[in-house]
Amino acid sequence: MKRSFIREILECITTETISFAGGLPDEKLFPHLELKESANNVLNDASSLQYGTSSGLYALREKIAEFYTRDGFETNPSNILITSGSQQALDIIARDNRDKSITIEAPSYLGAMNVFAMNGLTQEAVSLHSDGIAIDAFEKSIISTKLAYLIPDYQNPTGYTYSDSKRDTIARIVEENDAILIEDSPYSELYFEKKYQSISSQIPHSSFHLGSFSKTLSPALRIGWIRAEEKLLDPLIAYKETMDLHTNGLSQSILNDYLRDVSRYDEHLNLLRKIYAKKMQMFKIYLDELLPEFKHSKPKGGMFIYGEIPDVDISILVQKCLDRGVVFVPGEEFYTDGSKNSEIRFNFTHCKTTDIFKGLNIIGKVLKELN
Amino acid sequence: MKRSFIREILECITTETISFAGGLPDEKLFPHLELKESANNVLNDASSLQYGTSSGLYALREKIAEFYTRDGFETNPSNILITSGSQQALDIIARDNRDKSITIEAPSYLGAMNVFAMNGLTQEAVSLHSDGIAIDAFEKSIISTKLAYLIPDYQNPTGYTYSDSKRDTIARIVEENDAILIEDSPYSELYFEKKYQSISSQIPHSSFHLGSFSKTLSPALRIGWIRAEEKLLDPLIAYKETMDLHTNGLSQSILNDYLRDVSRYDEHLNLLRKIYAKKMQMFKIYLDELLPEFKHSKPKGGMFIYGEIPDVDISILVQKCLDRGVVFVPGEEFYTDGSKNSEIRFNFTHCKTTDIFKGLNIIGKVLKELN
Repeated sequence: MKRSFIREILECITTETISFAGGLPDEKLFPHLELKESANNVLNDASSLQYGTSSGLYALREKIAEFYTRDGFETNPSNILITSGSQQALDIIARDNRDKSITIEAPSYLGAMNVFAMNGLTQEAVSLHSDGIAIDAFEKSIISTKLAYLIPDYQNPTGYTYSDSKRDTIARIVEENDAILIEDSPYSELYFEKKYQSISSQIPHSSFHLGSFSKTLSPALRIGWIRAEEKLLDPLIAYKETMDLHTNGLSQSILNDYLRDVSRYDEHLNLLRKIYAKKMQMFKIYLDELLPEFKHSKPKGGMFIYGEIPDVDISILVQKCLDRGVVFVPGEEFYTDGSKNSEIRFNFTHCKTTDIFKGLNIIGKVLKELN
Repeated sequence: MKRSFIREILECITTETISFAGGLPDEKLFPHLELKESANNVLNDASSLQYGTSSGLYALREKIAEFYTRDGFETNPSNILITSGSQQALDIIARDNRDKSITIEAPSYLGAMNVFAMNGLTQEAVSLHSDGIAIDAFEKSIISTKLAYLIPDYQNPTGYTYSDSKRDTIARIVEENDAILIEDSPYSELYFEKKYQSISSQIPHSSFHLGSFSKTLSPALRIGWIRAEEKLLDPLIAYKETMDLHTNGLSQSILNDYLRDVSRYDEHLNLLRKIYAKKMQMFKIYLDELLPEFKHSKPKGGMFIYGEIPDVDISILVQKCLDRGVVFVPGEEFYTDGSKNSEIRFNFTHCKTTDIFKGLNIIGKVLKELN
């Protein structure tokens, strides 16, 4: 088992390091005082500290189902399985598909690739373009794999978003081939202009839709979920139970209390969108100014700006930048073959705005020294 | 994947059901106001809501290591991996030993048996006696499996405790055969008279020692750990990371804050021990009075009283009792072969004391009707 570059970096860097590496939310936006109030409400009663059910707290599953329904994707609590973050959701589904094949994007989320590898799945990587996965290659692949893993909204690592027409086409292809789609959507609420309709909502009987509160409220709560039809979801409950009995009950109860005021949560999301859009804009301005060699496209939401610096050995650049106190992730981490390329992923949400300038300025200088 | 009887029962029973089934602590003993105070301390600061490290919160690992050291088992934070309950600890170790063989007790903890099965391990079950596993059969088995899973303190389901001499013998056998011991100790703090020395402390280089706060503080916190030498522990961190990134950060921070006052935790443990010892005594008195057919031995700690009602079809008894609002677990659930027997596990910690009489009275009556 290989550890991820990002996680190992996270454990090594000091508080002084300027990190564009992890997919970390901005701590200043965590609603810690509201969650504190909810923790007080919950801990007035000892019953929230007892064992819970493997599917998750019913009242919380109701609230998550209601979020789908108000978006036009009719959903019941029985369609929701609460997981210890959506990382565990991936592991649960992968376990139920052990040793099969799966079509994924190239590049893709490193944590998913590691989960699939750990569960013996053969990964067929299909090129991802700025409007979504390459359709012909996707269709050719899924005919044999019958299983696909996609991140259509503000993808990790690229920040790309699938066009509406590609969403329609993929839904049709998945259904025509009796395949299953795993649609990972941790960033879908972090849009800058409009919310996209999930592919899963077009094919509810052939999809797992994965969500998370890690990017919108707090990663430390470790609350994610799987939305699926009962026929697909029910076999997963035994895995969940065997893996860790049930998801953290205190977190679930606190979250459930916090979400009693939906309009407050909506306001919080609006604030996140506004601030992250501004941070992205600022990041882009500094990139154009300090690192003009970096060819990239502008994300429509999420947490990442992705691109390349042609003809540069990124592994040397990352090491020299780390020595100077700045870190980012080389693109080769996000490909199954791990072959060298000149791509880079920048996270724009976590850093203080003053550090964005400082960090990109250092990278620009190191790059000049290399050339 | 089969779901466990206990977990399915837990999800079906109403608040009216008298349950001697699950291994649930007494809710009245959860220190919810102290944990509330800690939640307030922690949530005054937003940083506890960010992503954490896969090994777990360093300050909490320090405190757990210190508990071992003061018991004479020298331990550093680098020997501790925090897990989402000790259920996940079992899954992590089982994953790293996929498709191997393992020696277990008969009967054993159902959740462990399910984890081993899920990970393709072949389980060799060796008879458990009231003073520990049958030594000759254990030695014969571990010569080929090289891996054993034991619960030496107040075992689940039997409540049995290994004698000091059997502990010594097992340590010697494990070491002589270059084998590895997984020692599961969720109940070790719940002793009624004295604390037993772990087998792992005799063979630190050949053991995983598993602990949990689920039975002593609160199951909803989902905090367990693995104690092992770094050489054994380090390969497991990549599994942990791939499975759920890291254990719930909010729970870890709250627990870490709560444990700053060790003497308060010690007092809490003393209270638990006293009350559970009383509840066990009362349970035993009512058993002798209302269910004299039930042959059992008296546990020295933990949560369970185990025994048998000879010549009774327990599957009929359990169903008829469930119809009358009382539930317990038939012993056959705890054997790998699942063959019928006349054994029963009673949990004595969870029920209100008035319900202990009521529940056992109903079981006694149902039994009379069956005979």
